[in-house]
Amino acid sequence: MKVDFKKLDRAFNPRSLVVVGASKQNEYQWLSSQLTFKGKLYSVAVNPQSIEDIKAMGVTNYTSLLDVPEPIDLVIVAVPRAIVPQVLDDCIRKNVAGVHMFTAGFSETEMAEGIEAEKKLKAQAEAANLQVIGPNCMGLYNAMVGIRQFPEQPVGMSGALGVISQSGGHAINFSLDAYAQGLYINKSASFGNGTLLDSADFLEYFAQDPEIKAVAMYLEGVKDGRRFLKVLKEASLKKPVIIWKGGRTEEGSFAIASHTGSMAVPLAVWDAVIRQHGGISVPTMDDLIDTAKALIYMPPITGIRVAVTGGSGGQSVNIADAFAEVGLRLPALTEQSYDKLREFYSIVGGGFRNPVDTGNQNRFQMKRIIDILAQDTNIDNVVLLSLARFIMRNGQLDDFIEMLADARDSRKKPVMSIIASSNNEDLKIAAEASQRFQDKGIPVFPSIERGARAMRNAYEYYRLKTLLMAS
Amino acid sequence: MKVDFKKLDRAFNPRSLVVVGASKQNEYQWLSSQLTFKGKLYSVAVNPQSIEDIKAMGVTNYTSLLDVPEPIDLVIVAVPRAIVPQVLDDCIRKNVAGVHMFTAGFSETEMAEGIEAEKKLKAQAEAANLQVIGPNCMGLYNAMVGIRQFPEQPVGMSGALGVISQSGGHAINFSLDAYAQGLYINKSASFGNGTLLDSADFLEYFAQDPEIKAVAMYLEGVKDGRRFLKVLKEASLKKPVIIWKGGRTEEGSFAIASHTGSMAVPLAVWDAVIRQHGGISVPTMDDLIDTAKALIYMPPITGIRVAVTGGSGGQSVNIADAFAEVGLRLPALTEQSYDKLREFYSIVGGGFRNPVDTGNQNRFQMKRIIDILAQDTNIDNVVLLSLARFIMRNGQLDDFIEMLADARDSRKKPVMSIIASSNNEDLKIAAEASQRFQDKGIPVFPSIERGARAMRNAYEYYRLKTLLMAS
Repeated sequence: MKVDFKKLDRAFNPRSLVVVGASKQNEYQWLSSQLTFKGKLYSVAVNPQSIEDIKAMGVTNYTSLLDVPEPIDLVIVAVPRAIVPQVLDDCIRKNVAGVHMFTAGFSETEMAEGIEAEKKLKAQAEAANLQVIGPNCMGLYNAMVGIRQFPEQPVGMSGALGVISQSGGHAINFSLDAYAQGLYINKSASFGNGTLLDSADFLEYFAQDPEIKAVAMYLEGVKDGRRFLKVLKEASLKKPVIIWKGGRTEEGSFAIASHTGSMAVPLAVWDAVIRQHGGISVPTMDDLIDTAKALIYMPPITGIRVAVTGGSGGQSVNIADAFAEVGLRLPALTEQSYDKLREFYSIVGGGFRNPVDTGNQNRFQMKRIIDILAQDTNIDNVVLLSLARFIMRNGQLDDFIEMLADARDSRKKPVMSIIASSNNEDLKIAAEASQRFQDKGIPVFPSIERGARAMRNAYEYYRLKTLLMAS
Repeated sequence: MKVDFKKLDRAFNPRSLVVVGASKQNEYQWLSSQLTFKGKLYSVAVNPQSIEDIKAMGVTNYTSLLDVPEPIDLVIVAVPRAIVPQVLDDCIRKNVAGVHMFTAGFSETEMAEGIEAEKKLKAQAEAANLQVIGPNCMGLYNAMVGIRQFPEQPVGMSGALGVISQSGGHAINFSLDAYAQGLYINKSASFGNGTLLDSADFLEYFAQDPEIKAVAMYLEGVKDGRRFLKVLKEASLKKPVIIWKGGRTEEGSFAIASHTGSMAVPLAVWDAVIRQHGGISVPTMDDLIDTAKALIYMPPITGIRVAVTGGSGGQSVNIADAFAEVGLRLPALTEQSYDKLREFYSIVGGGFRNPVDTGNQNRFQMKRIIDILAQDTNIDNVVLLSLARFIMRNGQLDDFIEMLADARDSRKKPVMSIIASSNNEDLKIAAEASQRFQDKGIPVFPSIERGARAMRNAYEYYRLKTLLMAS
């Protein structure tokens, strides 16, 4: 099927939305997830008990889609499989833009009946150029217009990230984790069996969407490899595409066989091919979040030379190891920088090669230290480490934010912050501090190791993009 | 110096403790950290202002150590370096068991004066067989008797872990992180320059301490490699020794040069030698915590075949990848197990090869599933995955704990739980649930990846121990 951007625009930004098949059996989950929808929400159900419950939820119900008295942008289908053809028929007659097919029981069952039903579904939708998401998926999420995949997804804000996931569970978990870490999603699609619209279609659509600055994907496989790679390359030239591939091991591939049934690809081959086409391949969901955050919040990372300050002693060793282990470098500063540091630096118990220790009275000179690092010609990027249990003391959080923003703006160096936490109280403080850093466009990472990997991955994107442009 | 276990027993479990040199300059930190001490706490200070402040803290002050009217088990020294010889002289006359020397400015400064002062300190202590911890360190922590390295360290409980750290910062951060994750420390030593008592001495002491079931170390290097390895081997035959080595990279080694000045060792050589002597080498503090938790909470892990349940769909793929990537296996179950699962298993949308999906109505059969997995002869270990946002529903937490404890006790299989969280609210729930699991001896890990690495490391210990016993 040809992906229709105009119809997808309507499906992702609907003004009218109909849930077909809300019932006690599915706990009205699809209707209750959409109660935040800002446009006109309708239900189509025929069971008298369901109709009563739906009305009690404050939603207008019709017994046929054809009765809905206006054009429909998006339909969510949660009816049993047997009724799908009839519902699709109504969607086509009603000239619906997009259909999210939650209903399962198709080819993923690996049973003849389900496979046959999916073939019919495909033919029916293709003939009418109906944009079908799914079946067997959690559909679309757009926080700004209030359409959701899960009742706990946040609404009312918007970000710069597009998400494409072959797993509904991962799409939902990703959105909750990312939000808690200050990474906001613009649009998300869980596409399930990908019978009509597949990963490449959503990627092509997100690539041309001006609201989306980076794309994060969870994939278990791709159906048309050639098309996917062509779209990936075109997208990567415009914006970063970060891909977490499930089935990185033989055991993972077995699990995929019972999940989406995608073909196994040796990991080394996958990684190499993705890289050749400008994509960033990552091994975990945390890496997906962190890398997207680094790419969205930071200016282009074009060098691997990092200066770090804020830690001390054993922590400095830990920092140096963590950044070097992912391929970044902590070089010596210029002699001019050391001369400037020596003017005020207390040397006992604290090194100042790089990392520059501040677990001592030197911490009161943080502004001077960060400015020296940001000006240093041996240094490409500046990182500030803090412990959550200290960061709120004496108003230093505001100072830190100002110092880093200034280093970035007047010295043109990418900056990031790492806030380490020990317990839940720390995590609460870190969440608040992170929000304030990120409001000023400075990304915060919850551990040294995660910050280091995120920076390396962001660097990798710009390096690959340069290679791609030259090829 | 010969390590004196009897004196160390007194130093780690003091009945009397004296802080020498509490002053406004050091913010009375050493005195305020010990206010939780259950024995008799005294101060020795001469400055009239300090004496007044110390009395206001409710602590009895003397102007000389010799005036303290009873035997002294532990002295914490926070005086300027110049006064150290005189204080040590008093400690020797008073026949003090152990001295924690917080005072810095010795060989770590790399300056002639400091190096000379350390030589004198060493000679003075050695001649009297005075057990000196430090200098330049955060000393001892024993939560049960209330002696601490930092005022926020928890007191009043006790665990089975011994901690030995070349960095005071890491010793403190480790204790706070571990406590928040339900891993309790029995005794901890930050030994700084290790002038008298070094890592090998504390390891030898912890190896014979019946309260300590496992030892976690942070090291940047060892002074007497032969002795350290001999002690490591002897200790490893008795209990697990997990070592996080700083300076894993060239950049880390540079940072070590300004921290403890330990010699650089190529990582591959270090890892191989540690392994040959039964030690578990880990790359991060999180791994140190997780591995200790797995080893302390679980019975011996003697096989790599793991069965996992509790997840679904994409999560099952993630689980399989994470366990396989660290070298564990998720084999197919026996045919008998599949027969038993088929009796009730709803197959649509959920695999049951392994991982056994329960993101559907099969979750109501969790007890049967776990029992089938625990009985399966293809399976060595059982893992249960939950999401924090679901675990408190319908009293299932208690059921989960009972099911796993039963699988462990009646089927003799190691069990672990993984509770994944998305946000701070989840983390609060996870902390409570983890506490309850761990009260029943079932370790909980905060992510699939961390649980997998911990189990693999625990397996590695028992494998290496078997090799060591055979050699």
